[in-house]
Amino acid sequence: MTRVQITREVHFSSAHRVFNPEWSDERNLEVFGACANPNWHGHDYLLYVTVEGDLERDTGFVMDFKDLKSIVEDRVVNDLDHRNVNLDVTWMDGIIASAENIVVAIWERLADRLPDEVTLRKLTLWETPRHYVEYSGE
Amino acid sequence: MTRVQITREVHFSSAHRVFNPEWSDERNLEVFGACANPNWHGHDYLLYVTVEGDLERDTGFVMDFKDLKSIVEDRVVNDLDHRNVNLDVTWMDGIIASAENIVVAIWERLADRLPDEVTLRKLTLWETPRHYVEYSGE
Amino acid sequence: MTRVQITREVHFSSAHRVFNPEWSDERNLEVFGACANPNWHGHDYLLYVTVEGDLERDTGFVMDFKDLKSIVEDRVVNDLDHRNVNLDVTWMDGIIASAENIVVAIWERLADRLPDEVTLRKLTLWETPRHYVEYSGE
Amino acid sequence: MTRVQITREVHFSSAHRVFNPEWSDERNLEVFGACANPNWHGHDYLLYVTVEGDLERDTGFVMDFKDLKSIVEDRVVNDLDHRNVNLDVTWMDGIIASAENIVVAIWERLADRLPDEVTLRKLTLWETPRHYVEYSGE
Amino acid sequence: MTRVQITREVHFSSAHRVFNPEWSDERNLEVFGACANPNWHGHDYLLYVTVEGDLERDTGFVMDFKDLKSIVEDRVVNDLDHRNVNLDVTWMDGIIASAENIVVAIWERLADRLPDEVTLRKLTLWETPRHYVEYSGE
Amino acid sequence: MTRVQITREVHFSSAHRVFNPEWSDERNLEVFGACANPNWHGHDYLLYVTVEGDLERDTGFVMDFKDLKSIVEDRVVNDLDHRNVNLDVTWMDGIIASAENIVVAIWERLADRLPDEVTLRKLTLWETPRHYVEYSGE
Repeated sequence: MTRVQITREVHFSSAHRVFNPEWSDERNLEVFGACANPNWHGHDYLLYVTVEGDLERDTGFVMDFKDLKSIVEDRVVNDLDHRNVNLDVTWMDGIIASAENIVVAIWERLADRLPDEVTLRKLTLWETPRHYVEYSGE
Repeated sequence: MTRVQITREVHFSSAHRVFNPEWSDERNLEVFGACANPNWHGHDYLLYVTVEGDLERDTGFVMDFKDLKSIVEDRVVNDLDHRNVNLDVTWMDGIIASAENIVVAIWERLADRLPDEVTLRKLTLWETPRHYVEYSGE
Repeated sequence: MTRVQITREVHFSSAHRVFNPEWSDERNLEVFGACANPNWHGHDYLLYVTVEGDLERDTGFVMDFKDLKSIVEDRVVNDLDHRNVNLDVTWMDGIIASAENIVVAIWERLADRLPDEVTLRKLTLWETPRHYVEYSGE
Repeated sequence: MTRVQITREVHFSSAHRVFNPEWSDERNLEVFGACANPNWHGHDYLLYVTVEGDLERDTGFVMDFKDLKSIVEDRVVNDLDHRNVNLDVTWMDGIIASAENIVVAIWERLADRLPDEVTLRKLTLWETPRHYVEYSGE
Repeated sequence: MTRVQITREVHFSSAHRVFNPEWSDERNLEVFGACANPNWHGHDYLLYVTVEGDLERDTGFVMDFKDLKSIVEDRVVNDLDHRNVNLDVTWMDGIIASAENIVVAIWERLADRLPDEVTLRKLTLWETPRHYVEYSGE
Repeated sequence: MTRVQITREVHFSSAHRVFNPEWSDERNLEVFGACANPNWHGHDYLLYVTVEGDLERDTGFVMDFKDLKSIVEDRVVNDLDHRNVNLDVTWMDGIIASAENIVVAIWERLADRLPDEVTLRKLTLWETPRHYVEYSGE
């Protein structure tokens, strides 16, 4: 079989704050700096979702890009876009809203919702135009 | 004289909410949709600052790019980056935090703080990778 | 009044062929080269639509970005995306499908369909990542 | 030995149509939607070709970037640019013109035409600015 | 007549040094900082050349993009690419190699070499991904 | 444990020349072409530094992005930016200044200076907007 990876980009605009609620304000400020600002800040997150599967002879597809986009919007984007990651997203409850934790949580949202014929291979999440995080489920 | 325009890019990551405090929640939701979400959302704003001046014979510069960056950081970026536009920025007090209003307010912050030999010509503010606003002081 | 310009990006994937039906195949090949290939070629066009208006005090908007996007999709993108510019687009009938002619035809599609409070100021159409055309209605 | 990967970007503007000639028009429309439009559509494809090899002491190169570009243009770009993938490209005959199938066919065009000292490692093909496919020869 | 602007991007990789030969090393260091480093530094310059003209009925063109690219390569890129702006480019002799001066010198190289039917309207020169200069011949 | 990769982008503007000092000028010109120009040329290098580590429960971080940036600036960017790779950078002495050799030398500068909890996984160095090199320490 021929294995191909396909990647779809989506984006969402969210507020967040990176802080540990078990710590004092001083300790949060010391560790997280401006990222812990109590009045929040935000980002235009760009998410690249990569799945892998066998090339199907009948379609030339691994899976339909439109279906992939639709699953990611339904499971991820609609919950995060124009929302506050800390306050509005139930599947981030009790989790520090770092890019690293967000990308792992998105993995959990997607991994078992994809069609049987593909496997989630990698998520890449740009938090700003200068830095990003990647997770491969390991 | 030879007139040249020079442009410096900066970026800042901010939370905001677009709503009119004189309106009911229903009216805000109707007009602004998800942009009015009470728990905020956010963006990685990209700002392009364009100034114009005569080419100086001695330096080949209109003004030093490092000085331009420094003025924009001091007057604009340091107040907005990792902050909440509605709550943390004194010069946005009482102003609806739309991209349009932010770009006009940035103009006021910069126009009279530039060296005498240049004129502020244009501000371009990208709110997401899909849309931006421009202001030329008119 | 405060005049602000706002710009929305959209994209569409279209086939086209640049040729003059009044000319021989030889003359078309000579003038247009590979662009006249009878079996078509295509592009991911990126269109930036810029409108200008007064800043409204109640909303902080010139016009709602969602409305602008919706008008452009309805009047332009839905007709062009995944279509053949020469064969499928009634408002390009009898017009050579160059980027220059497409951008002027898009202007005609949009100029009188925008809300009264804004004016169409500029259209920028990228045909490839290396070149683009601009039209301001003049 | 020190193993380094080098990547060259090229682009081509092509028309295509994604459909299965063994199916009815209705089934094609149902599965492929607008991608099956009989009058074609098109893209500005961006292709990233990644090869790996040992760092040569005498040159500091894995292979010469100019040679890599030249091979890719000769074997791939010249056949696809300003062409119709379905009608004009002999090595796509009888193959559904999906991005996935194109990237696998490009692999076949390149894998055994590279200098002995390098190995083709990955092809990344962007079909639009929003999605891409990758193939590693597996 | 219908006036359209068309823009072609080209790039070149050059070394340069920004300093005033009439000044002492100390004064150069004070004014230009690291830009005056005697052993040079360099950039991947991106140049956008914008010309304006009437839409020709027979071609749908203002001028042929291939011709525009060819003129810019012949008059500008071939002299600058993989060269030292200060030492290798005769038309920069005696001129401080700032981006501002380079863009004005490029204007002189192009303005009277374009076909009669178009006018050079704007040159935009990105010196790094963070800043650029523009010149309109004024 | 949960393994996440994080990547920070930095950039530097440097001059260089690719040539083998043990060869004649003719041989250098034959092999390296314009890259061997004796008066140098230059680039805006973009470097992406990828490290991997376990997600820390207390911070949601693999390591602090600000610390990563600071290490890369201290060990790499400050030596290269606005410098000549061949003449000004002690850790490139006697090494041909190809992108491939630069990326391997940067690896040596970074690999043992990172916090114990992370591992350097990949360096990606764009030399122009059209090509890049990658090194994973193998």
